[in-house]
Amino acid sequence: MHLALFLTHAGSHLAGWRHPLAENGNALDIRYYQRLAQRAEAAKLDLLFVADKLALDDIHGGDFEAAVTWRPSGSPEPLALLSALSVLTERIGLGATISTSYHQPYHVARQFATLDHFSGGRAAWNAVTSVNDGEARNFGLERHLGHAERYTRAGEFIELVRTLWDTWEDDALIVDKASGRYADASRIHYADHQGEHFRVRGPLNLPRPPQGHPVLIQAGVSGTFQALAASNAEVIFPVQSSLEKARAFYRQFKRQVLDAGRQADAVKVLPGLYPIVADSDQQAQDLAGELDELIQPLAGLAFMSASMNYDLAQHDPEAPVPDIRDFIQGSKGRFDVVIGNAIEAGWSLRQLGRWYASSLAFAKLVGSPKSVAEQMEQWLQEDAADGFVVMPPYSPGGAERFLDQVVPELQRRGVFRREYQGSTLREHLGLRVPAPSRIKAR
Amino acid sequence: MHLALFLTHAGSHLAGWRHPLAENGNALDIRYYQRLAQRAEAAKLDLLFVADKLALDDIHGGDFEAAVTWRPSGSPEPLALLSALSVLTERIGLGATISTSYHQPYHVARQFATLDHFSGGRAAWNAVTSVNDGEARNFGLERHLGHAERYTRAGEFIELVRTLWDTWEDDALIVDKASGRYADASRIHYADHQGEHFRVRGPLNLPRPPQGHPVLIQAGVSGTFQALAASNAEVIFPVQSSLEKARAFYRQFKRQVLDAGRQADAVKVLPGLYPIVADSDQQAQDLAGELDELIQPLAGLAFMSASMNYDLAQHDPEAPVPDIRDFIQGSKGRFDVVIGNAIEAGWSLRQLGRWYASSLAFAKLVGSPKSVAEQMEQWLQEDAADGFVVMPPYSPGGAERFLDQVVPELQRRGVFRREYQGSTLREHLGLRVPAPSRIKAR
Repeated sequence: MHLALFLTHAGSHLAGWRHPLAENGNALDIRYYQRLAQRAEAAKLDLLFVADKLALDDIHGGDFEAAVTWRPSGSPEPLALLSALSVLTERIGLGATISTSYHQPYHVARQFATLDHFSGGRAAWNAVTSVNDGEARNFGLERHLGHAERYTRAGEFIELVRTLWDTWEDDALIVDKASGRYADASRIHYADHQGEHFRVRGPLNLPRPPQGHPVLIQAGVSGTFQALAASNAEVIFPVQSSLEKARAFYRQFKRQVLDAGRQADAVKVLPGLYPIVADSDQQAQDLAGELDELIQPLAGLAFMSASMNYDLAQHDPEAPVPDIRDFIQGSKGRFDVVIGNAIEAGWSLRQLGRWYASSLAFAKLVGSPKSVAEQMEQWLQEDAADGFVVMPPYSPGGAERFLDQVVPELQRRGVFRREYQGSTLREHLGLRVPAPSRIKAR
Repeated sequence: MHLALFLTHAGSHLAGWRHPLAENGNALDIRYYQRLAQRAEAAKLDLLFVADKLALDDIHGGDFEAAVTWRPSGSPEPLALLSALSVLTERIGLGATISTSYHQPYHVARQFATLDHFSGGRAAWNAVTSVNDGEARNFGLERHLGHAERYTRAGEFIELVRTLWDTWEDDALIVDKASGRYADASRIHYADHQGEHFRVRGPLNLPRPPQGHPVLIQAGVSGTFQALAASNAEVIFPVQSSLEKARAFYRQFKRQVLDAGRQADAVKVLPGLYPIVADSDQQAQDLAGELDELIQPLAGLAFMSASMNYDLAQHDPEAPVPDIRDFIQGSKGRFDVVIGNAIEAGWSLRQLGRWYASSLAFAKLVGSPKSVAEQMEQWLQEDAADGFVVMPPYSPGGAERFLDQVVPELQRRGVFRREYQGSTLREHLGLRVPAPSRIKAR
């Protein structure tokens, strides 16, 4: 089983920050992240995972009031965070979310290559396509790129970044003081990329990363996403609300990976998971209830509006959920399902907001350490997952409870490592180091 | 006296890496930078300074062969480097070079705000406009932006980044678990920037940096540069090859600062400085000679070509330096002077390449710790500088010699601090925290 810890300031449950065991102050305090990272490493997790958005959420009602008032906002830039953590940890992987829609490939290639060097081969890139107009407006556009365009751009972006990582052959450096030769120019190559979205000559201005390529993560569930991920991703982070759905998705996705000419285990499927853990099953249920009591439904609706790029404030919150599936522009795959289920259940928008704030549509495993571990093992055994991105509902308390109580239970059951065997993230995940792409000499 | 340490992998002298006391291996090894940063902090320096270029130098002869063969190339992305160093140091400032020509203001504002938060107020941004076509070609352009356009873009970029830092008022966070209110939306503002080069709505997605604004550094000497810097910069890093020239520049620049409506000491002038230090003056002269013996003139000519965005390979290296001043597109201010002086001295291109490789046109102070300290003090007393960016010719040996031998001599003379008085870079430099710009509520 592979495990990532989803790093947040105060937890993934939208009211988690109000829990007594949640952090209560500065989201930019690196010591808070250091503490969590080192605890996760002591528990031998595969990697840390940092999400990102490029704007305050301001789709709901056309401003950011609901988003900033009722839940934590303001967070560090992911690569700066992971660079800092790279020197405070030794073995755990470091995964950062960076958008292919609003960044430049040359910068992104350099940043991840640097992180991979600093960490001795522990970097991973979660390549996303961003979700809403608020993000577009911070980069000179009025509207978010359309779904299809985002994905063609993402495909070209990822291929180009990999090419840039390969512009230095592994043995390009000579560093011979006597002859004065520092590098072998014949082992460094232009990329000469001229595509639909980018023209980048290269070479990159630093040596090939220790992992060859930092690990590529992708998050999503839409059909367009799956096609891209089946050919490119090495880890995927899908939203799956139940074991049954996860099993069906897993089977189908692994088939796509095979169809793309890759081995099924070349991509690890790590669904997001909300563990709510207490000493007994009953206490865990009580804790889940306490957390849900703290929810402001507006926080959920504002988050959903931002993720869908659709303003839910235009509808009466007490009326039944309207069928807006044709208008979802953001995380389409996820919200087609969420909205469909809510309509079927006959919920009001307010009910939907509450439900979404409580889990963000991820699977919630509630129980004692033993019963949470049991359920996780079941997902593995029934081919619903290769592991999980663990999203503590409140933090650091909820994260530490998982690491201190559930991980040892998984180790006792023999489904999770007791010690790191390798030193790179690829080694932790059992992924091969990619051979350099053949870049032709001019 | 204010002192910055210019961080490089193996030294600023282009053959410095061949010296026995230079680092000899991996330019991406964070432990090397950690060692230097901690030594500089123990010596109570104001800040670390990291330069940057966005391409391998490939103007000379139209490819990167000369640049990668004869001197170190390949270096970490500056913000990743300083984020890592922010958690390995406690007091020293952290200055990174980021180009306004090939980055996006929203990303840059976030990255420096994050660095300022992680470091508790120690971030500085060296805003440069980049130098050559090789950089442009990594970002979709065929040619580098023209001198005038670069500077109007830089002015708008800097103003916009400052506005983004101010989008959160200092007391925007509430974080009240009882009421569930996390932030006060009325204290967070859109930037609504619509300029000639950028349209960015904001707000930034993190709280105002501890220093209000990270310190703004600018490097250059051209007239266009001086006009921008006199209005904006808080530290400048000019090339000055001698005390006399530095004195004239200092007097004239401080007058421009006054003309721009600012106090003269609101901008610290820190010329670059090559210290070549040994136990005696004679030994230092010998060391300088040894270093120069190791020079490959091509390394100097390739570096110059890249910095000027003009290919010197088209001229006979044995012929006198041609007057190419009308064709310099990169660091124009610096190279108008360099080329003019070389013509006056009757040098061949090869001689110029040697000379440039030896100092990059910065002032070289050669001597015992006492005599180097004496000369530095003289620059201060004669109003030629407010301090220096110290550029060790070889590293870490040359850096450590300066920190261990020259700094204590400066302390004995009472011109440099023995202890940090403040904890932020602004405090070290004696710069005030800027009041937030007034962003109107919509």
